[in-house]
Amino acid sequence: MNKQRSGWRSKALCSVIGLTMMSPVLAAKPIVRDGEYRFLEAQYGDEWAKEDKEIDQKLADMREANGGERPNIVFVLIDDVSFGQMGKPALNDVMGVQTPRINQFASEGMSLNRMYTEPSCTPTRAATLTGRHPVRTGIKEVKVALVGEGLGDNEVTIAEVLSKAGYSTAHIGKWHQGDIEEAYPHNQGFDFAAFPLHQQVQLALMSPESARANNLLGWYEGTQSNALALDKKFKPNGLVTGVEARKGGKAREVDLKPGETWTQAHYERMNERYQRQTIEQLREMAGKDDPFFLQYWPLYPLNFVHPEQARSLNGGFMADKLEVIDDWFGAILDEMDKLGVADNTLVVFMADNGLMYHYEGTSGQSQLVYRGGKTDFTEGGIRVDAYARWPGAIEAGSRAADIVHASDLFTTFARVAQAEKYIPRDRVIDGIDQTPVLLKGHGNGRRDYVYVYQNELLRAVVKQEWKMHIAAPGMPAAAAGVYNLYRDPREQHPLIGHSLWSGASFQDMTKRHMMTIKAYPHNELGKDKPYTGIENLRPESVETVETFMSWH
Amino acid sequence: MNKQRSGWRSKALCSVIGLTMMSPVLAAKPIVRDGEYRFLEAQYGDEWAKEDKEIDQKLADMREANGGERPNIVFVLIDDVSFGQMGKPALNDVMGVQTPRINQFASEGMSLNRMYTEPSCTPTRAATLTGRHPVRTGIKEVKVALVGEGLGDNEVTIAEVLSKAGYSTAHIGKWHQGDIEEAYPHNQGFDFAAFPLHQQVQLALMSPESARANNLLGWYEGTQSNALALDKKFKPNGLVTGVEARKGGKAREVDLKPGETWTQAHYERMNERYQRQTIEQLREMAGKDDPFFLQYWPLYPLNFVHPEQARSLNGGFMADKLEVIDDWFGAILDEMDKLGVADNTLVVFMADNGLMYHYEGTSGQSQLVYRGGKTDFTEGGIRVDAYARWPGAIEAGSRAADIVHASDLFTTFARVAQAEKYIPRDRVIDGIDQTPVLLKGHGNGRRDYVYVYQNELLRAVVKQEWKMHIAAPGMPAAAAGVYNLYRDPREQHPLIGHSLWSGASFQDMTKRHMMTIKAYPHNELGKDKPYTGIENLRPESVETVETFMSWH
Repeated sequence: MNKQRSGWRSKALCSVIGLTMMSPVLAAKPIVRDGEYRFLEAQYGDEWAKEDKEIDQKLADMREANGGERPNIVFVLIDDVSFGQMGKPALNDVMGVQTPRINQFASEGMSLNRMYTEPSCTPTRAATLTGRHPVRTGIKEVKVALVGEGLGDNEVTIAEVLSKAGYSTAHIGKWHQGDIEEAYPHNQGFDFAAFPLHQQVQLALMSPESARANNLLGWYEGTQSNALALDKKFKPNGLVTGVEARKGGKAREVDLKPGETWTQAHYERMNERYQRQTIEQLREMAGKDDPFFLQYWPLYPLNFVHPEQARSLNGGFMADKLEVIDDWFGAILDEMDKLGVADNTLVVFMADNGLMYHYEGTSGQSQLVYRGGKTDFTEGGIRVDAYARWPGAIEAGSRAADIVHASDLFTTFARVAQAEKYIPRDRVIDGIDQTPVLLKGHGNGRRDYVYVYQNELLRAVVKQEWKMHIAAPGMPAAAAGVYNLYRDPREQHPLIGHSLWSGASFQDMTKRHMMTIKAYPHNELGKDKPYTGIENLRPESVETVETFMSWH
Repeated sequence: MNKQRSGWRSKALCSVIGLTMMSPVLAAKPIVRDGEYRFLEAQYGDEWAKEDKEIDQKLADMREANGGERPNIVFVLIDDVSFGQMGKPALNDVMGVQTPRINQFASEGMSLNRMYTEPSCTPTRAATLTGRHPVRTGIKEVKVALVGEGLGDNEVTIAEVLSKAGYSTAHIGKWHQGDIEEAYPHNQGFDFAAFPLHQQVQLALMSPESARANNLLGWYEGTQSNALALDKKFKPNGLVTGVEARKGGKAREVDLKPGETWTQAHYERMNERYQRQTIEQLREMAGKDDPFFLQYWPLYPLNFVHPEQARSLNGGFMADKLEVIDDWFGAILDEMDKLGVADNTLVVFMADNGLMYHYEGTSGQSQLVYRGGKTDFTEGGIRVDAYARWPGAIEAGSRAADIVHASDLFTTFARVAQAEKYIPRDRVIDGIDQTPVLLKGHGNGRRDYVYVYQNELLRAVVKQEWKMHIAAPGMPAAAAGVYNLYRDPREQHPLIGHSLWSGASFQDMTKRHMMTIKAYPHNELGKDKPYTGIENLRPESVETVETFMSWH
């Protein structure tokens, strides 16, 4: 295996290691920003600096009111759910799915009605973890089976930042940042981690039940004879399932015994276990003196087998699980009440990207307001339901239509945790501190733009209510469709007049972004032998690794 | 003119006249229902009869608590606004339009999240007025210019029913039930009426400003030379604008002087006047001993000229007016508070059908969740925002996803006003009493079906979450697309399996409906010379009538 490291990467590594001995002088260096942010900062810098003092004071007052302690942070990230499917009562009735607990949670906090993610799970999660556009970290969509790649140890995650600042940290559920040791959550700053090595394609789609439910035509050998197939390795097998580990330790697979076949029942038990472990972690961490950061990334509603008895009016195999998610999130909130930590905890609940609309109809999920879904750069791929609750800090029942990007959570979490000094200063941080929106409400955002990538391709640029779909290489800029998102939320009617007046401004935005990339080139993805750091690999997994290594 | 009257129509007329001397025995006759309702009644009759006693008691208790008085009813019907555009906070942010007063109103009452209308203004309004599918009244879409037709005096409106029961009644704003005397609101039961003879195509679209705003290419002679046109009557002109009248009196045109050209300024003043007159009527009627029924049907947001300075983030020429409607509705609610009538008034606020999506983009309105708009039989044409507030009777912040149809307002208003005995018994009443939903909440509806017409054509049948688009004549029933509205709200993916299991049930539903029509044939539309009963016709209107009569 070619374990390539560039000079820049080595420098970045040193910098990460250097965090432990970071001097106050170093910490005072400004965060490196994208050109577009600096362009705004030149227009608003004085105003923002003044406002920041006010916010620092407010945060200090809140700490004082909480016995000097910083807030806990609970971050629940739901998989593949489009804007409107959770927490918006009228749309519950449209879908025939009820999310009363999420609706209630929304009414106790702020609805971030213009939250942007990346168009797919891995990049969105990388953005929240690193505060950076995933393209800068080398992260793209991580494939289903073995890749020997993952989030590099040259990246600094929010868990590392908060750990430095004295937070207890735990990650439960989906991770999806690669199959190599350095990418695992317990090697990326989490004290405890329980997570599946891969994702739900393996765990929910590649099961006999899902194949028999008509969702994976012919994949399962029981559903076809397979007589003419030569290559027995084409269909992935022997993949590691769920593992658990503590910071710096080895991972241990806990969900499957050697020789056992993965089934829907395993998937359901895994989901239930993560929910249970989240509650357990909550109890454990609430009992400590330190504040905590608990990250729960459930696998539901992704699911490809119809329930024996549906509970929702909708009944679709994913829509029905949204109601389960609602129950489970409610149980977490109840537990927080019981533990007495609700008041001093910032809880963020959101989805990671739009629905898998490829299963629209039978899954019971639908695009609702925006067009497209997972993998798309239209709003349907990247606009999600997002809510933040922090009693006493965030006004109950408030809404903000300011643009927020998933990477902003990194910077905002660091700010409220007084951990900004641990944000690295040697690389671009795209995440913007949105504490002003949380504390002062709608209209206090510091971002009126988003760059929309599919893997390493810049596909669209959003500025205010305008969105330009980047023209194909070589095409004239006026051929790039520009959409007014308030008037055409489904991006169906590009008007040439829009492109003509805004084309140059959009090009300038892109230039500012590209100049930043030139000054701070992208990091490289971590590369290693797959399944490193797992102490109890099943024989079938060992064989799968051997197959993989045989041609690498 | 051929003033045709059938024998049946004459009988119906007698029956209307007969209402004044209706005997208790006659009143005790059951309301004539559509076969589909009777099919449900056969399944739930005993249960409903028991529940009705309970509801009667609750209504009696409420009257007692209100000094023996029945509730007032205020019915605000907005023109051409799709589901999601008013009163749903998250979708406010999607559109860049804020409706805080409607949102607040919704939170004080019940959201009727599955309210169905007809696909166009005239039929929806006829349905609320008569409690009948418009097809039964002979009402179709009423055209823009002279037609010599309208809602017949053989129909019994909710205003007539409530007048009989001792209510003061007033109608302000859009009427759109025809250009003949018997169709005017003051001849259909309203004590006072201020309304335009026609609708906004004349008042908002056919103006020099709208033509210059690019919304009516070439219509206005100032924008083209018109050199080759022979027929000078092809473009409608000389139309009557706004009139006012008292019950049984003559109408008087109040908005335009002879020789004057109608402009956007006239349209804006007309809108403002209706709002002012609504407040005035509210004051006048609140001062009386009788309970009142106030119907306000604004002309906005229909509008085709951009404001000099838009107020919304959206800025579209209709979307911007949604914010004006919000202000104005808020002012009405404030006035009700001031007058002390808010507690004893049922206020229903809703739209009459989906948006004019033909102007999507520039108007600033968009389809949002459902597909289609005005004139369509898809949900986008017939699903609207609808809210009902009645403090003490309706639970604040509640929602109901039960199917409700615009015609149900007729029957429900009659029930809460103790006026059911004045509902005619000689014709089919489609409107279902939805008081159980209002008083007991979600899940207490008595309708799980809707027939969807475009004029006299039955185009779709809705049952529970299923909707069948009627196949073209001669096509096999399995070719009729059947959609699950929870899973496919945009009606894009008909699944043959749906049609196969439900086809026969849908056909049976249609048969039950058609058998009822056979037993109670449709009524005939009123016909007369246009502009009868207007005492101050302008010379240009007289000429227009003469032209019309010359070829009839």
